Amino acid sequence: MNAAVVTVGDELVLGEKSDSNFPWLARRLAELGISCALHETVGDDQIAIARAIKTTQAVANIVVVSGGLGPTSDDVTREGVARALGRELVFDDVLAGRLCARFPQADRQFLDLVLNQAYVVQKAEVIVPRLGTAPGMVLFDGDQALYVLPGVSAELEEMFDTEVVEHIGRHFGEREPLVRLVLRTAGLREAEIEGAVGDLKIVYGNVRLGYLPRLGQVDVTLTGKASERAEIVAAAGEIRERLGNAVFGEGEERLEAVVGRMLKERKLTLSVAESCTGGLVGKLVTDVPGSSEYFSGSVVCYSNEAKTALLGIDAETIAGHGAVSEIVAVEMADGVRDRLGTDLGIGVTGVAGPGGGTERTPVGAVYLALAHACGNRLVKLSLAGGREQIRLEAAVGALNEIRLHLEGLG
Amino acid sequence: MNAAVVTVGDELVLGEKSDSNFPWLARRLAELGISCALHETVGDDQIAIARAIKTTQAVANIVVVSGGLGPTSDDVTREGVARALGRELVFDDVLAGRLCARFPQADRQFLDLVLNQAYVVQKAEVIVPRLGTAPGMVLFDGDQALYVLPGVSAELEEMFDTEVVEHIGRHFGEREPLVRLVLRTAGLREAEIEGAVGDLKIVYGNVRLGYLPRLGQVDVTLTGKASERAEIVAAAGEIRERLGNAVFGEGEERLEAVVGRMLKERKLTLSVAESCTGGLVGKLVTDVPGSSEYFSGSVVCYSNEAKTALLGIDAETIAGHGAVSEIVAVEMADGVRDRLGTDLGIGVTGVAGPGGGTERTPVGAVYLALAHACGNRLVKLSLAGGREQIRLEAAVGALNEIRLHLEGLG
Repeated sequence: MNAAVVTVGDELVLGEKSDSNFPWLARRLAELGISCALHETVGDDQIAIARAIKTTQAVANIVVVSGGLGPTSDDVTREGVARALGRELVFDDVLAGRLCARFPQADRQFLDLVLNQAYVVQKAEVIVPRLGTAPGMVLFDGDQALYVLPGVSAELEEMFDTEVVEHIGRHFGEREPLVRLVLRTAGLREAEIEGAVGDLKIVYGNVRLGYLPRLGQVDVTLTGKASERAEIVAAAGEIRERLGNAVFGEGEERLEAVVGRMLKERKLTLSVAESCTGGLVGKLVTDVPGSSEYFSGSVVCYSNEAKTALLGIDAETIAGHGAVSEIVAVEMADGVRDRLGTDLGIGVTGVAGPGGGTERTPVGAVYLALAHACGNRLVKLSLAGGREQIRLEAAVGALNEIRLHLEGLG
Repeated sequence: MNAAVVTVGDELVLGEKSDSNFPWLARRLAELGISCALHETVGDDQIAIARAIKTTQAVANIVVVSGGLGPTSDDVTREGVARALGRELVFDDVLAGRLCARFPQADRQFLDLVLNQAYVVQKAEVIVPRLGTAPGMVLFDGDQALYVLPGVSAELEEMFDTEVVEHIGRHFGEREPLVRLVLRTAGLREAEIEGAVGDLKIVYGNVRLGYLPRLGQVDVTLTGKASERAEIVAAAGEIRERLGNAVFGEGEERLEAVVGRMLKERKLTLSVAESCTGGLVGKLVTDVPGSSEYFSGSVVCYSNEAKTALLGIDAETIAGHGAVSEIVAVEMADGVRDRLGTDLGIGVTGVAGPGGGTERTPVGAVYLALAHACGNRLVKLSLAGGREQIRLEAAVGALNEIRLHLEGLG
């Protein structure tokens, strides 16, 4: 059993918007045990839409069409689908009534627009929208199913997860779902991870290994059929063993959430002193709702004067050792921990580039110091890439140092 | 003249990676005056690749294929292209020599892998890679051109911008390019902008209007043929007039870069005090290389104790008015400006949610205060959306307040 996806929109074929619906649909279909054989993107053009549907039907039993169901004249997916199936559009009175009932205060002009969405393809089973105003449609063309869904992601996802999943289960039987296990890592590069575990794809032939770098971290994904779950779990165990404490979690939990959870469990508080990351460490820590329970605050001392004014770091220390140095990192960590009275303090200083590198501290040199009740922990990173990448990896490195320290506390 | 794009990769059809190459290629093709009629995504499967090429050739004179040119066994785009065109793969000795010469120290096993990339489709004009090791190919099939490029974005973009653009110009003549003008706005929502200027698409019928929300800002795009440039410029002028000082720039310059440029021009320095944004304002300010010229630092006082310890805000003021209040925002701005001795100080305090809202200060309530030599400027925002959106819009709001103040200084 194969699926195919057609995404519709001029903004997509003009490259003005990247298509987030297709990857979402592909992942959901894979989880249902259905592979996606083909994806087509076309503009708001009914002939192109009809042609795309015919092309995808040639390789798939299930076709999902997304986008172009809005009320304005450039939304022509209804017409494209009707053309592909050789059917008419019909006005659905019941749907029209439901759509109008949503807008008791609306004027005639607005309702006229909304009512464009009450035209549906003959013999369509209508999915009444819960979120927006664009109805979805379920159609059969012989044995083949066609699911026509809105382009607004929230509306698409809601309809897919309720009506479409249920419909696929009912008409195409239960599929053997795919199992997908995600090991989240920090501190290693994609190539290092592939080098360390890449050979396992031969040992575990039924497990598909993937490496997804994101936000300075790398996710290792293991995908396979549900019946191969034991093999997936075995492979994951071996990867965990080989990668050691670079693996910080499984599934969707983010590094900053793991750090937050560990701080809460241990009833510890955190403060941050950052230079080259400019506020990014604090931003990541406070991405987590409820972080005020353990995060007190941070000091971004970008200039040398700020290091002195806010953290009391001796100007002579900075002059003697340089602002990017072990001792300044340690004094930043100690200083912020002391001033904010927290259990842990982390200091980050480095050269994000593109300018400012020297022979001793080139672009990408970053010092991370963690101050805790029993002393300090210091790490030097040598990062590659552009300014954005270096800053992101430095900030993630800081979070990772906090995690490694907390893991050591047990 | 039409183009089509085929992107290849199992990671794409599994939804593990979103496709950034297609939007990039679509934009570049549009700039060359070539519309993209169709985009297909297929997995690493030579039959699917061959079928996609035939399908796209049915609607396009130019087909760009991207991905699957690597050295490992799952890279089968070469085979797929050969199959689509009914040609053989041939070993290119010259290319092989060039590829090997790049790795004088490499061992036999590594070179064997690299040499897989020296197989090219019969009659292909080879594009020798400058960045990676995957060669590109230019092929003719009758009158139709086929450009086969690597999937690594940097390699693809480099080959497209040099060889492919030149080849298209030579073989398909000069096209009338599209002109694309971008007005960057801050402080208005997409719907507000569409409401204010949406009718202009009728007045200026040759101009395509687009609204791209990104990073808490909205870009208004105007696209049209080069011969309609006067109409595009006129429409842009009218939009600028209607949107007033919400427009902060044209083209690619980011709000934080505009603020940085204005500070440098006026020889002013900035410091930041943030609460709910957790460091994001400082992060955005320091995204700009060279920001150390005008940015001194920031204080993230997430807890009430930090507001007192780092900025000297009276605990009674916080208790009396609440941490999210006009007066605390003003004292944060004054306090950081004073402590860091900068010309400007900005204070941001608000409720990012999901918890922490009260009747007086619900989730989304944000106070922005700007302290300058002659006093204060205070704004209250009522933001909607989730935690991430509220934090982003609050931070962008802070940058925008700085910009509006600096514009007032002339």
